[in-house]
Amino acid sequence: MKVGQKKYRTIWMEPRRPQSVFIIDQRLLPHRFVVLELKTVEQVYDAILSMKVRGAPLIGVTAAFGMYLAACRAPVKQFQKYIRDSAAYLRSSRPTAVNLAWALEQQLKCLAQARSKAEAMNLSLERARQITEADVAACRSMGDFGLAVIRTLSQKKSGKTVNILTHCNAGWLACVDWGTATAPIYRAYQEKIKIHVWVDETRPRNQGASLTAWELGQERVPHTVIADNTGGHLMQHGRVDMVIVGTDRTTRTGDVANKIGTYLKALAARDNNIPFYVAAPSSSIDWKLCDGVREIPIEERDQDEVRMIQGWNGKKLQTVLLTPPGSSACNYAFDVTPSRLVTGIITERGIAKASESSLLKLFPEHRACS
Amino acid sequence: MKVGQKKYRTIWMEPRRPQSVFIIDQRLLPHRFVVLELKTVEQVYDAILSMKVRGAPLIGVTAAFGMYLAACRAPVKQFQKYIRDSAAYLRSSRPTAVNLAWALEQQLKCLAQARSKAEAMNLSLERARQITEADVAACRSMGDFGLAVIRTLSQKKSGKTVNILTHCNAGWLACVDWGTATAPIYRAYQEKIKIHVWVDETRPRNQGASLTAWELGQERVPHTVIADNTGGHLMQHGRVDMVIVGTDRTTRTGDVANKIGTYLKALAARDNNIPFYVAAPSSSIDWKLCDGVREIPIEERDQDEVRMIQGWNGKKLQTVLLTPPGSSACNYAFDVTPSRLVTGIITERGIAKASESSLLKLFPEHRACS
Repeated sequence: MKVGQKKYRTIWMEPRRPQSVFIIDQRLLPHRFVVLELKTVEQVYDAILSMKVRGAPLIGVTAAFGMYLAACRAPVKQFQKYIRDSAAYLRSSRPTAVNLAWALEQQLKCLAQARSKAEAMNLSLERARQITEADVAACRSMGDFGLAVIRTLSQKKSGKTVNILTHCNAGWLACVDWGTATAPIYRAYQEKIKIHVWVDETRPRNQGASLTAWELGQERVPHTVIADNTGGHLMQHGRVDMVIVGTDRTTRTGDVANKIGTYLKALAARDNNIPFYVAAPSSSIDWKLCDGVREIPIEERDQDEVRMIQGWNGKKLQTVLLTPPGSSACNYAFDVTPSRLVTGIITERGIAKASESSLLKLFPEHRACS
Repeated sequence: MKVGQKKYRTIWMEPRRPQSVFIIDQRLLPHRFVVLELKTVEQVYDAILSMKVRGAPLIGVTAAFGMYLAACRAPVKQFQKYIRDSAAYLRSSRPTAVNLAWALEQQLKCLAQARSKAEAMNLSLERARQITEADVAACRSMGDFGLAVIRTLSQKKSGKTVNILTHCNAGWLACVDWGTATAPIYRAYQEKIKIHVWVDETRPRNQGASLTAWELGQERVPHTVIADNTGGHLMQHGRVDMVIVGTDRTTRTGDVANKIGTYLKALAARDNNIPFYVAAPSSSIDWKLCDGVREIPIEERDQDEVRMIQGWNGKKLQTVLLTPPGSSACNYAFDVTPSRLVTGIITERGIAKASESSLLKLFPEHRACS
């Protein structure tokens, strides 16, 4: 997607530097746009660990390129040991990310077949590119299916602006391009459908205010940042036509784990008869789980993410304290929206109802494992 | 209530300075505790305008004392003109605050009767003290009625900790003492009922994280600050036993306008069968209104309250930018929780259901004006 006038992805290679990969330092957004060159496995590890890259799909793709860099840097003697050690090392950067482990596994299989270092480099680069393009294609496809929903709403409103509320960042910055929840928004904007996006700031880490708002701004999509508290009021007054969010993990029955606070917006959408959609690439559907509230473990993060906040003081990024020094805080990262509150799940194969039978119609290969 | 080991109110006089009134500079909380002496009408005006004092009841009481200071400072010639000008000036400090206008009206009536400057000073001081003590008594009374609810929950849980969620600051800092929503909490704590309070940080102005957490900490009431997004998740997992919030304006039918985000918590409470109480002194009930969502005007405040945030950088209060410079924000200060989501309204005369008939049973003098 666009940054200024130039098209970017979140991760790319440049012809003049064939053994490097380039990323955006997302920690500095929206205040500064800085591109980083990663040359070594250690630099990739650090980029994931310190959240210069974040978002499950992007973490997976970054790790896949990390394995290509490992193949480039590996000594010919003990080549396979270096590769295995690199994979274990990268896996430890963010141990709970499903896409990370999956991408590393793909690369290990691929590299095990290589008969020379040169072949290993070729194979792992090709595999990294495949993983990248598969992510882009899935997002683009969700974009087209979601576009149809927005188009229908626009027609119902006789072409008046469709107001879409989103929570957190399920944008292209979390993927390679397009994003998941944002893909329908970007597609609708390209198709010249009048839209406006309400961007929940998404405390405590403020991914909405910092990343989603920045993305939309660079693409010139009309948007307004709101405190997370505001969505219910807007819905009561007819100022939200639909909600689209992403998901970190969705059960086979359609319960949706997503950034903390998503459940509250789903309740408000239901109370005001507003459609609530979830963009869920099949890689985020956990076919083993049936009851989201009971079965999905919810990560508890450092309380200082609530007690403090980071912003731009005019010269640099600064962290300030918000709470009394003696008050502790509690920081759950996700919540679960029960399927009964979800209007539809937008996947790369089409839109399903939030039910096991409807999801299995799109993904019949998962019928067996119930 | 306590600050450190010492008892304070939010506004008081000191014998050694009979023509001054003292307040806490609430803009600096929770980071610094600074007491200010107000000697003139201009200083009172500034204290209200710049939100050194805030909260409808406290603004009213501060204005009442402001009129006493006006009587002290008024020239004997043109005494009544000075008094009227002072009242108009103070009224302009925060024009929408109902208690402010009411307190000034009370003082004007009182001062019009005075036959000398000395008598005016006496009468206005007495009236300011009456308004102060009436507020304290109303809060204390709501505390006792709310205490009974908490005691019942505690008994149901066989004495295990009762977890109470609150939103914004309806604490003693918004009143003179006790607070509205916090009065039952302080009373329960004094009665040695085991309680714990979940404090919504309450973006954008963070009154929960800065004021409610500070109040509770000074009284040593166990509490934990959470992002506004978190309450739904806690309720789903049985970690909230009741919600108590304050109100800025409640209709005669029991629709509750309160800080933005209250409605979302009420929806989550209903979805999880958790009682949702509103502490509403009768001064906050608007007997002229029947439909809260349609009739209560919602203040829209400066977007910079969303785009920026203030915190302590280790040396001083600092404001930092959270959003991209090109992104605008929208900042509604309140929302309306429909009466159907409210379990009970705690008033100084007892607890009513959120309905016209139940409220009128407690306040029969308002039957006529429907």
